[in-house]
Amino acid sequence: MTTDYRQMWADLGIDLERHDALLGALPPIYQKAYLSQRNRPIGMQFFDFVVGDIHGIRVQELRQHAMNGGKVVATYCVFVPEEIVLAADAIPVGLCAGTQFSVPIAEEILPRNTCALIKSSFGFKLGRICPYVQTSHLIVGETTCDGKKKMFEILAEYHPVHIMEVPNKKSQSSRDLWRGEVAAFKEVIEKLTGNEVTGEGLARATKLVNERRRALQRLYNTRQARPVPISGKDALLVTQVSFYDDVARCVQQVNALCDEVEGRIAAGEGVFPADAPRILISGSPMAIPNWKLHHLLETAGAVVVCEESCTGTRAFSDLVAENGGTVQEQLRAIADRYMQIHCACFTPNDERLDDIVRLAREYQADGVVHYNLQFCHTYANEAVKVERALAEEGIPLLRIETDYSDEDAGQLRARVDAFLEMIRG
Amino acid sequence: MTTDYRQMWADLGIDLERHDALLGALPPIYQKAYLSQRNRPIGMQFFDFVVGDIHGIRVQELRQHAMNGGKVVATYCVFVPEEIVLAADAIPVGLCAGTQFSVPIAEEILPRNTCALIKSSFGFKLGRICPYVQTSHLIVGETTCDGKKKMFEILAEYHPVHIMEVPNKKSQSSRDLWRGEVAAFKEVIEKLTGNEVTGEGLARATKLVNERRRALQRLYNTRQARPVPISGKDALLVTQVSFYDDVARCVQQVNALCDEVEGRIAAGEGVFPADAPRILISGSPMAIPNWKLHHLLETAGAVVVCEESCTGTRAFSDLVAENGGTVQEQLRAIADRYMQIHCACFTPNDERLDDIVRLAREYQADGVVHYNLQFCHTYANEAVKVERALAEEGIPLLRIETDYSDEDAGQLRARVDAFLEMIRG
Repeated sequence: MTTDYRQMWADLGIDLERHDALLGALPPIYQKAYLSQRNRPIGMQFFDFVVGDIHGIRVQELRQHAMNGGKVVATYCVFVPEEIVLAADAIPVGLCAGTQFSVPIAEEILPRNTCALIKSSFGFKLGRICPYVQTSHLIVGETTCDGKKKMFEILAEYHPVHIMEVPNKKSQSSRDLWRGEVAAFKEVIEKLTGNEVTGEGLARATKLVNERRRALQRLYNTRQARPVPISGKDALLVTQVSFYDDVARCVQQVNALCDEVEGRIAAGEGVFPADAPRILISGSPMAIPNWKLHHLLETAGAVVVCEESCTGTRAFSDLVAENGGTVQEQLRAIADRYMQIHCACFTPNDERLDDIVRLAREYQADGVVHYNLQFCHTYANEAVKVERALAEEGIPLLRIETDYSDEDAGQLRARVDAFLEMIRG
Repeated sequence: MTTDYRQMWADLGIDLERHDALLGALPPIYQKAYLSQRNRPIGMQFFDFVVGDIHGIRVQELRQHAMNGGKVVATYCVFVPEEIVLAADAIPVGLCAGTQFSVPIAEEILPRNTCALIKSSFGFKLGRICPYVQTSHLIVGETTCDGKKKMFEILAEYHPVHIMEVPNKKSQSSRDLWRGEVAAFKEVIEKLTGNEVTGEGLARATKLVNERRRALQRLYNTRQARPVPISGKDALLVTQVSFYDDVARCVQQVNALCDEVEGRIAAGEGVFPADAPRILISGSPMAIPNWKLHHLLETAGAVVVCEESCTGTRAFSDLVAENGGTVQEQLRAIADRYMQIHCACFTPNDERLDDIVRLAREYQADGVVHYNLQFCHTYANEAVKVERALAEEGIPLLRIETDYSDEDAGQLRARVDAFLEMIRG
């Protein structure tokens, strides 16, 4: 930590003392979860660096952009179309929401029976310990779930917030509503930045974000190999960092990592034994730095081969059609791609059941762990149908509901061990 | 209980043994909560009778209608436009969701961290202990909250379900979506019943339902008097029964009750001392037979003068404009009236804050009890702003989060006593 950053944090209104405590807590956690892993791809060093400087260089880039008159647009959710933000020469940044550290701060205001992700994100703002949100000119929220939807109303008292309405159904009229929301979002971003969103700008942004999606798809595909050439923890981190790092840099780094990892596959090199139980995780998103479940599974001898979640396949599954056209046509293509996210906020959401079964097959998963954050009604309820779908396919399932605390670590470890034993047996 | 009903229940697929236990549990509860009250209006005897025969005559009426080829449409939520059901000569019936009895049954399938109302309603169907749902040909659900939205997906495996999408915002495009949902609902009902919904039929139904709304408004207005001429418990019961009783009969009974109660006001007669603390309850709905909070407050010496909830003012606050016109115009008037419900599923929902403050003034409330069911994210989060709004007005507030069980009775009683003491002091 250099003095430069400290001044920058102070200028951003960061509570330095609290922030010091947050940053102080991270290295031992990262050492234990990440740096202790063996035979990691060299390409992961970039991501280790990013985490080691997590509130440094990237924040400085955003701040520089702001000082040059640019805007920073913060988001929490994969539904917010980054392409529009980029087309207006603004920088989109996904916010942290994955640590227990900020949860007690949020509980001073939010109901306790709220999922940890919501509490953590709110606590970062309320406690003034996140320089990313402090650099942002606008937070874009959405109406995916009740907890978030209502939290944003309170957050709006602390920071400018724009809410996009994500519909509840996938009907034609719901689609029309969403297209309208995307068009309205473009106008909000134009007004914020003072820049016009042109067809050219959209096409350029769409191409760039698609490149990142392709890069992440490429990375995920490598995990179908046996033995697995990269740990689930590492892949998760790459996905998490992709939410807030510079898009072009991310594309470059992820592709470089893929080059190396594909080389490993060719050489038959893995980070886990070929017979390590292969696990597909499915459910609620895992915001950085939430590595709890992956760490649990991969220290128990399993390898996480895929994540069917918004910090996984749902983040990059589909590309936006790159057909160019008018601004309106491109916005429509963008809106339609985002409506394909199989989020549990939609009813019905049977496509997600199909995804889970398909991914389990493609990644040769020996078992699925369904993960929902406590108080997450959408994913908790979908677990009922997931259970049935997997039972019909003969795929073992472990249902886990948890939060960010360490309180249930022992209990979860016992359940994971039993599950893995059952799979191995 | 006559033999006739037993056969009817059996014909409806009711689990008779479980159902006997449910019906057996009700009389002592009703005795304790209702019949022990003093100086009740004579007009409440009709409602006592309804509860005493809760799965008897009304169910028989519905069944008779079905046997004559008519349809019964079950609902849980005030958003579902009864007018359309009635215009198609079908009978709308609000379903019970207010007892702990059916909760454990639901917990065999639904996540435990689900609000009691959702679990109770689901348990009634799963356990086959509700003849109302058994007589119904269709359940109409909606997307107001995550828990319900996702529960309906599972309920649809047990009973035909149609889902109406209630939007998340009150924007023009959200309104358009809702108008589309109401129009689609009409077609669903026409298909179900084989009856055309005509302008005439809609006008007649609208007029009738408006009469019930006026009757309930009239009843609620009597509670502004000091001393209060009817207990909150009794008013709540009347509102709860209005959800499933015959509309015309309800209009007649409620107006007769109002005649009597208005007479009491003229005579200065009350059911509580004039200086009893007057409480406005606001928040999550209280489905029949959930009388927990009212009983707690009114046995502690307070009187509940109003409920700002879907089993209160939100059920009847606004009338549908009776301008006649084409079917499309009338459907639009209906849709627009239902969009005026200040439900916490909307973001933002500042109108509800205004309602609470206004009602507190109109009903001369000495304090407000904000009530949300545990795991109800929408109302739990709105409590944050309600607290602030009431503090600014200098109106005392008690926030209660609870479920249907008796486990927290002692704790709640202590908090209520302390609150009332503070108010009195």
